[in-house]
Amino acid sequence: MFENKEKTSIDKLGEFGLIDHLTSVIELSSQHTVLGTGDDGALLDAKGKQIVISTDSLVENVHFDMMYTPLKHLGYKAAVANFSDICAMNAVPEQITVSISFSSKYTLESIEELYSGILIACKKYKVDLVGGDTCTIPNGLVINVTAIGYQDAGKEVKRGGAKEGDLLCVTGDLGGAFMGLQLLEREKRVFLENKEMKPDLQDHDYIVGRQLRPEARVDLVNMLAEHEIIPTSMIDVSDGLSSEIFHLSKHSEVDFAVYEDKLPIDQDTYNMAMEFGIDPTTAALNGGEDYEILFTIPQSDYDKVKNSQDISVIGYAREKGMKNQLISKSGNVHDLQAQGWQHE
Amino acid sequence: MFENKEKTSIDKLGEFGLIDHLTSVIELSSQHTVLGTGDDGALLDAKGKQIVISTDSLVENVHFDMMYTPLKHLGYKAAVANFSDICAMNAVPEQITVSISFSSKYTLESIEELYSGILIACKKYKVDLVGGDTCTIPNGLVINVTAIGYQDAGKEVKRGGAKEGDLLCVTGDLGGAFMGLQLLEREKRVFLENKEMKPDLQDHDYIVGRQLRPEARVDLVNMLAEHEIIPTSMIDVSDGLSSEIFHLSKHSEVDFAVYEDKLPIDQDTYNMAMEFGIDPTTAALNGGEDYEILFTIPQSDYDKVKNSQDISVIGYAREKGMKNQLISKSGNVHDLQAQGWQHE
Repeated sequence: MFENKEKTSIDKLGEFGLIDHLTSVIELSSQHTVLGTGDDGALLDAKGKQIVISTDSLVENVHFDMMYTPLKHLGYKAAVANFSDICAMNAVPEQITVSISFSSKYTLESIEELYSGILIACKKYKVDLVGGDTCTIPNGLVINVTAIGYQDAGKEVKRGGAKEGDLLCVTGDLGGAFMGLQLLEREKRVFLENKEMKPDLQDHDYIVGRQLRPEARVDLVNMLAEHEIIPTSMIDVSDGLSSEIFHLSKHSEVDFAVYEDKLPIDQDTYNMAMEFGIDPTTAALNGGEDYEILFTIPQSDYDKVKNSQDISVIGYAREKGMKNQLISKSGNVHDLQAQGWQHE
Repeated sequence: MFENKEKTSIDKLGEFGLIDHLTSVIELSSQHTVLGTGDDGALLDAKGKQIVISTDSLVENVHFDMMYTPLKHLGYKAAVANFSDICAMNAVPEQITVSISFSSKYTLESIEELYSGILIACKKYKVDLVGGDTCTIPNGLVINVTAIGYQDAGKEVKRGGAKEGDLLCVTGDLGGAFMGLQLLEREKRVFLENKEMKPDLQDHDYIVGRQLRPEARVDLVNMLAEHEIIPTSMIDVSDGLSSEIFHLSKHSEVDFAVYEDKLPIDQDTYNMAMEFGIDPTTAALNGGEDYEILFTIPQSDYDKVKNSQDISVIGYAREKGMKNQLISKSGNVHDLQAQGWQHE
């Protein structure tokens, strides 16, 4: 953190040299990958499955701050954020392509570090990096990832499809990535005021990790297949729970009731929210980048999820027009706002 | 050209609004597209075919100059350049995802114009735009396109595979995009010196069009299927003929002999090269962005291509170690250099 180890200029490698250099360590692992990097295109064989494709960009000073984002973590997160989109269709990611645009302040070592984070994520999730390009831009860093995933036809899940009475479920816990960001921003301000100060992130591994090194819920997709559950709607929590609820609501033409006391909030998230004077419920509702999965299931599937430690039933779908509402711990009813973080 | 009609700031739409706005006019046409934009991912059904995927970026002031690149043409070219990569695997493009990163100097109207060019290309080539995102960057414009294409297993063609004795073929003509760029650069300099001067592009529609509005050779892929030709190697001419020959040579482990008098050069390209004091052969060998297809076929397929007005047999593959060489009109032999334009 706050380090600067830049060394080799990339100019002498050229684009071909850089791509060859970066991709030389790639080992393919997906059964659907026929040919990876090195030609005009990659070759994939869907073997009768449906293909899911998704693309997303991370931009310096919009989606991340180089002051406290290690490049390896950034690469990891760029990959995982796209895996998460594939999971949100109930599919398993198996390939990505990566385009990196960077200014001349980035050296070979820094791009290698970014790339190594992408490859660590690929290895962990058994995803093949099958294509990509690099180019220079006047300022900053843009990482664009396109992910490809697979699912049997009929098992893919869209945002629209939730029916009245369906249970609203979410994996893991919420608000951690947001509180991790608050902490990193605070320590950055402290550091900028006094460069002698070391950032105090001790004992906050969980929320800092949630922000810098999130995970994609491929395990949920596998668990759903195992238990023969096909959710009626699905979305990943990248912009904040509240915002995602509005997406499901809009696409499915239902409204949701959400119970405050059911929102899964980790103790570290809770404590840090209190320290910042932020309502932990607000952090859970509006904090983005948790990359958990929000989904709906018919009530008949309740028995299949009720014993999962990692799935919380937080509400239910009801008739359109009843509004998306939060039922507070004290029983008060509040209209939800879709104030999830709007990417610029 | 040289116009500035910027109007609406994009801020008020937000990312979701902008994407909704831009994608609202999309009509799907590929039989392989199950679901387009609007969810976490798009759904594609390969229906037993192999999938080809390719990604590429166009960057302001690296790949294009806003002074003489109309945004609509730029969008068209960004799409077509990626279609061309799919064609270069002997596949037909059917979907793209598009990520656009732009600075605040770009207005809604300008992004719409860019997008409209992409959609015109999609419509012409029957390609579906199935996903994408937009984000702001501090400076400039980056367009990243990922294209997906299809081909029967066994008919995809890589860069490696050319055998000794195979014929080296190229579609269309070469050097036009490069001479178009020289002309545009000259007229830009004239304009910058005297803003009263109007750019003189009259009678040069062909080479200016080759630079600003190239086409992808999907027709070649269809023609090859019709005539039951499977090339032994293939690549598109994006960086210059000479550079592409070296790619085929490296991947196929053969060397090539190329005949100068067989190089297809349009009359307008030839004349403009002479006007600039550039050897037309040099323009054909080293000029990039023609997006023609360079490929090799066994001699036994010669009869199937010999009558095509649009395919030139320009040389042949020979034993590795004999070097890639140009046999000049006067019979002299020159070693080729892989000095194709290296993207930065």
